Amino acid sequence: MEKDPRITIAEMCQNFYQLGWVSGTGGGISIRRGEKIYMAPSGVEKEKILPEDCFVVDMKGEVLESPRNASLKLTECAPLFLSAFELRNAGAVLHSHSSNVVLMTMLARRIDEDLSVLEFTQLEMLKGIQGHGYYDVFELPVVDNTARECDLTDSLRKAIDRFPNSPAVAVRNHGIYVWGPDEVKAKTQAECIDFVCEVYWKMRSAGIDSHIATAAQPAMR
Amino acid sequence: MEKDPRITIAEMCQNFYQLGWVSGTGGGISIRRGEKIYMAPSGVEKEKILPEDCFVVDMKGEVLESPRNASLKLTECAPLFLSAFELRNAGAVLHSHSSNVVLMTMLARRIDEDLSVLEFTQLEMLKGIQGHGYYDVFELPVVDNTARECDLTDSLRKAIDRFPNSPAVAVRNHGIYVWGPDEVKAKTQAECIDFVCEVYWKMRSAGIDSHIATAAQPAMR
Amino acid sequence: MEKDPRITIAEMCQNFYQLGWVSGTGGGISIRRGEKIYMAPSGVEKEKILPEDCFVVDMKGEVLESPRNASLKLTECAPLFLSAFELRNAGAVLHSHSSNVVLMTMLARRIDEDLSVLEFTQLEMLKGIQGHGYYDVFELPVVDNTARECDLTDSLRKAIDRFPNSPAVAVRNHGIYVWGPDEVKAKTQAECIDFVCEVYWKMRSAGIDSHIATAAQPAMR
Amino acid sequence: MEKDPRITIAEMCQNFYQLGWVSGTGGGISIRRGEKIYMAPSGVEKEKILPEDCFVVDMKGEVLESPRNASLKLTECAPLFLSAFELRNAGAVLHSHSSNVVLMTMLARRIDEDLSVLEFTQLEMLKGIQGHGYYDVFELPVVDNTARECDLTDSLRKAIDRFPNSPAVAVRNHGIYVWGPDEVKAKTQAECIDFVCEVYWKMRSAGIDSHIATAAQPAMR
Repeated sequence: MEKDPRITIAEMCQNFYQLGWVSGTGGGISIRRGEKIYMAPSGVEKEKILPEDCFVVDMKGEVLESPRNASLKLTECAPLFLSAFELRNAGAVLHSHSSNVVLMTMLARRIDEDLSVLEFTQLEMLKGIQGHGYYDVFELPVVDNTARECDLTDSLRKAIDRFPNSPAVAVRNHGIYVWGPDEVKAKTQAECIDFVCEVYWKMRSAGIDSHIATAAQPAMR
Repeated sequence: MEKDPRITIAEMCQNFYQLGWVSGTGGGISIRRGEKIYMAPSGVEKEKILPEDCFVVDMKGEVLESPRNASLKLTECAPLFLSAFELRNAGAVLHSHSSNVVLMTMLARRIDEDLSVLEFTQLEMLKGIQGHGYYDVFELPVVDNTARECDLTDSLRKAIDRFPNSPAVAVRNHGIYVWGPDEVKAKTQAECIDFVCEVYWKMRSAGIDSHIATAAQPAMR
Repeated sequence: MEKDPRITIAEMCQNFYQLGWVSGTGGGISIRRGEKIYMAPSGVEKEKILPEDCFVVDMKGEVLESPRNASLKLTECAPLFLSAFELRNAGAVLHSHSSNVVLMTMLARRIDEDLSVLEFTQLEMLKGIQGHGYYDVFELPVVDNTARECDLTDSLRKAIDRFPNSPAVAVRNHGIYVWGPDEVKAKTQAECIDFVCEVYWKMRSAGIDSHIATAAQPAMR
Repeated sequence: MEKDPRITIAEMCQNFYQLGWVSGTGGGISIRRGEKIYMAPSGVEKEKILPEDCFVVDMKGEVLESPRNASLKLTECAPLFLSAFELRNAGAVLHSHSSNVVLMTMLARRIDEDLSVLEFTQLEMLKGIQGHGYYDVFELPVVDNTARECDLTDSLRKAIDRFPNSPAVAVRNHGIYVWGPDEVKAKTQAECIDFVCEVYWKMRSAGIDSHIATAAQPAMR
């Protein structure tokens, strides 16, 4: 028998807390099974949510099942999660407030009014991001943050459209949405993105501009 | 039946140890239930305190119940904790020695004889601090440290008065006091403050002066 | 009775996940018992593999036993692992994607078309690397990364040949292979290498060129 | 009934492993009960030692009890541990390879042929080091490392003599020995020293020369 996705959500949130992705009630994950989407509640300590705290909504965000604990609220990010389910046929979408990602969004190159981009290449961990090889450039779109989380929906949808090869959209000074065909792939892709953000940030902190050294180039020191 | 706050204190101190907030016997938490305040003992390994090690005091700091283990002492911070309970009607107050906060206090701008201030803005995690939105400036007061912890009381009370929008007062080269209507909110606010301190410190270490980029501004590189 | 190496692999992968060596499905470990080599499967969350998920291959890489779960695949790194088993008579080989190592590979000095080298000396932790004392120079070969992991085999074998005193070969922008007479020694040597990479990287980030100070030299500041 | 110090050693080594103090078989702890000294074995994974793996020696280092597992060896650090037991009447001595301490030893100021010193002041965590207040200067002696660990004995004993106010001696590019009247105080003092090393190193990495700001001084920025 398949594991209840509510249990998976509770377990994954504990893992994310250890990784520093969901401190201060931030972040979360939602998982789709058929036409049902399971979502962690909003504004609570994510590392302590119980399976029975989760909401179930349909693909339009209509609540199908509410937790018995009436003080729990559906996340404001619901429309953002739903965008990835709808536009990319995702099986799971996670939202992280990782400091590695937040710091890197500050370095994103602006390409449009409310859209920027980060480019990563030649790191083995990029292979863990669907459709990317070692020599490819992974373009991660970064949308500007807004006062209210739900106001991100338009720019997030546009970024999803414009960057069809990215399984993620970052939000400047905020965090990142990462999805995949299932919750395992969403999580492992998020780990790969986190890793490349950490490495690029540390390179910059050490004053290293580029790590790209082909055999034909002279040695870096 | 409600959980004994002494158990909550023991569990939270283990969590804080994992976060690096209470190493070397530093830091702690106290929780109010009605007119009773439950406090972790002083000068012991916080990650190992047992529920029965806690003191119970009244709002004036008079000891109502002492732990059976007579070697345990009430914390010197008691008057500091009590200030937040009294002046802000807090339900819980925590004290952390987080290195992220300690480092940031070194960068605080002096505004008075024994008072400085740190300003944070445009980070999503600021929304987790009561009364603050993404575009607001969170002003965190920083009082000078003193040779004895109890001598902080006056400056802490003045800072609480002067910065009514802050649920926290930091202490230069020392740590931070954070409170909330209950222990969950005290802890999640402390996590948000810790996060913004970490991010600002890392920006500075990487030589980045500002992360504020509106759509109208040119791209940062 | 000896512990099943499949159990050891599952436990070690959880340890490596805590250390940040195998995030995003990267990395792994294989253990030899006589002519049988036990290998973690590829492309799965390493912190969650079960003993029964492991493959058993012979010294030429022929599969002797497959896991019942037919969706599991043998790792593409198999030929790399086998090289160390064959050329160095290793008892265990681990592969880590540690960010400390990945960052340091960027600083390796090129000595040949697809080969570079890192040099470490005068750190106590170097004593944990077989055949090395405190005053020795530990030369860690770094081969260039390739689009496909199996294409690393030739350069890895050449590096193993050319650096007979190193129990490890790093891969630029990718990670490291570390081996030893058994799985304990492979892991502890990997920890020592990770430590010296972390220390050298942090020295560089702080602008410190050298930590070598003999009694005869003037003080560093 | 008092807890067997062998159990305490095993538990503390797991804690130290989490803190990054004993990776790669480095570091350890020994505890005195009367004239008996309990010591962790050498060259093994410290996070996995069992109570029955410990040695018992007398104050001169003569082995009173050996572990049944004959492959286990007494640590080469034994004479170092014994020096602190003898010269300072310590109840417990721990040895850590913390990277925070190792990095800071590189910045120590040389004051004699094989002796250097680090000075820390105005950090609250210094209060956790016996005999030190917030405004005191904690002088941590740093002896030069040697090819063999036992050759450190002379310089360590001299440093203990010369710095009677320090409950610790660091070893350049190697680690630190920290002691106390009991194992709890040894560990909490080690945590405080680790914290101040981390903070001073991060200040330096961020280009901050001093964090000392009295009320009379102008603001730091």
